Parts: sequence; structure tokens; C-alpha cells
Amino acid sequence: MKLAVDLNQAFRLLNHGPTVLVTAAYQGKVNVMAAAWNMPLDCSPARIAIVIDKKTYTRELIEGSSTFAINVPCRAQAGVVTQVGASSGRELLGQNPDNKFSALDLSTFSASKIEAPLLEGCIAWLECRLINEPHMQESYDLFIADIVAAHADSRVFSHGRWHFDGHDELRTLHHVAGGFFFTPGESVSTQSQDH
Amino acid sequence: MKLAVDLNQAFRLLNHGPTVLVTAAYQGKVNVMAAAWNMPLDCSPARIAIVIDKKTYTRELIEGSSTFAINVPCRAQAGVVTQVGASSGRELLGQNPDNKFSALDLSTFSASKIEAPLLEGCIAWLECRLINEPHMQESYDLFIADIVAAHADSRVFSHGRWHFDGHDELRTLHHVAGGFFFTPGESVSTQSQDH
Repeated sequence: MKLAVDLNQAFRLLNHGPTVLVTAAYQGKVNVMAAAWNMPLDCSPARIAIVIDKKTYTRELIEGSSTFAINVPCRAQAGVVTQVGASSGRELLGQNPDNKFSALDLSTFSASKIEAPLLEGCIAWLECRLINEPHMQESYDLFIADIVAAHADSRVFSHGRWHFDGHDELRTLHHVAGGFFFTPGESVSTQSQDH
Repeated sequence: MKLAVDLNQAFRLLNHGPTVLVTAAYQGKVNVMAAAWNMPLDCSPARIAIVIDKKTYTRELIEGSSTFAINVPCRAQAGVVTQVGASSGRELLGQNPDNKFSALDLSTFSASKIEAPLLEGCIAWLECRLINEPHMQESYDLFIADIVAAHADSRVFSHGRWHFDGHDELRTLHHVAGGFFFTPGESVSTQSQDH
């Protein structure tokens, strides 16, 4: 079940380093791209940083709309993540009247505060509003944004933390190289060693 | 064995989202802090981005020396990572004539291009030179840096990728919350699904 995540806990969705899918919409155009290079930037205000290459079509839509969504995909979607990463929405436009979502058979649902569509089958979603920093964007492809809403699949994230036991197909993906990912394995606790 | 990592492959050390330890040295003072919020920024030139809070003592040393090291700790060091994250080098200075390294019994070795010490027992090391961006640092605690040298433990990283099989104690740590981490588990390949 999709449940709202408190904004001050939203950083926990990205804290362990998952690869994500970025969706954006602007003037009727939509696209999706893969992004391993993302991180929380602050918990209060809730903010993230993400690298969006100049050559991506998604960047045009983000710079137009000033909003985008971070979708956290799971193990069951590993093939989709590789396909999204390997294909360009700009090129697909030429051969497909619709967009990358239909070309890759991706279902979406509406976000609560932004126009970008959210991807069905993912396990967390962060709705983001761009903080316009032209120098950072132009010089480093570095985008920062406020998280304006966050949601997660309560089977694997609740009370501010991930818990994947019993849900192997819902584990996050962490990009290694090429078409290879790690999924989170054993949990390590250092509670007894705390001082 | 510690082997050099090609700079254009250094991003792979952080690509899957590990929590890291940051070391810095300036005018004879040294410190170490934990940082879950880090990411590659570019592979050529090799660059990273990392969040360094204003209240950290390590930040003073980084801003003074313009250099720092990212040390990638492993499962065997989970207790150390939690201890480093829970203690302030500035406070320890009061009670310890030396520094946080001796207080926490951390061994170090020399970096090749910067002054910051590198931590023994870690599995990868990135020597970094700050790109001074005062607005980003001041407004967002966001630091970006060129990677000027990189090294990894060849038992678990070689030919540009991680391979932890048979080395459970050397798996990277991915911070969940409090004293809890994930380690990378099952590898997922989408090679057969590529188009």
C-alpha cells in the first residue's frame, strides 16, 4: 500500500544509495531516465541533490517545469531500469508518437503536488521542486530540489525505515556497472557497540 | 592488496551508494567523520559531491587545506563507523591531547597526493581536492571535489567493479538509520534482458 512519508524522514528513502528513475513532464511532454548519482542534501528542509546530464531529454522537461519525481525502483524492475538507462526519450520521439513510457510499457499514476507522472511498481516516490541554481546546473550538471511530497510502499518502508525481509522482489537496486546491480542483503546492527 | 584505481573508473567506488568516512588534515590537526550523503559527480574529470555539515570539525580542516580523503569502510568496521558518527573531533580535543584517531584507535597510512591520512581496514580510498564553490558550501553544505588519486582493496574491487563474493566482512556499508546498515547482497544481472 502507498503511504505518505513525513518530509523530515524522506531522506531515509535515499540514504542507503539506491539507483532511481527520474520522471518529468512539461507542456504535455513526459520522459523518464535512470540516475545512480543522487543523494539526500538535507532533512529539514527536505532536500535532495541529483546529477542530470545535459544531453538528457528529461533535463529539458525539468528546466521547463521546475519539477520532477524521483521513483525508487525495485528488484522486479531491474530489466526496466536497464532499458530506461539504455534508451533516449528524444530518440524514441522520432519512432513513437507517444513517449518512452508507452515504448517501454510503463504504467504511471498521478503525483499529488507536481505534474510529473509516478511509476507503478516502484517502492518509493519523492515529488521534487527544483531550486534554480544555474551555475551548479550548467557547470556540474548538479540539480538540487526541495522534496514537496514523499510516498512509499508500506510493505518495505514504514516508520522512517526500510525493511525488506520477506520481500526480495521489492529490494532496492544499487548500480554496480553495465546491467549489474546489488540488492541490499544482510542487515548489520551496531547497537550493542554504541557508547 | 591496495591497488591504484584508474581515475575514470573511480566513480564506480561510490556508484552503489556506500556510507563513507571522510578524513582531513590541516596544520597538524586531523579528523574523521562519517558521511552517508555522497555521490559521484562526473567520471571525466573524476569528481564527487558530498555533504559536510557546518558544525563538523572536519569541515574546518577541509576548508583550510582544500583537500580531504573519502575512505570506504567495510562490514568489519561497522562499529567504528557508528562510533565515528556519534563523536565529535572538536569535543574529543578537549579530553584527548591527540585526536579522534587515537581516541577511537584508528590506524592510518599516508595518502599519495594529499595530506589527509587514509584509514587502514577500509576497502577503497579517494584522494580529493576541493573545488571552491563558496555559495554551494555556505547555502547547502555541499562540497564538490576532483578525485586526484584512488585506490582499492583488490580482493573486492578490480577491473572497475566491486566483487564481494567470498569476502562478507569486506562488504560495503549502506546506512539505514541509527546504528543499522545494509550490506550488498545478491547481485542482479539484466544482461539477458538488454536490447
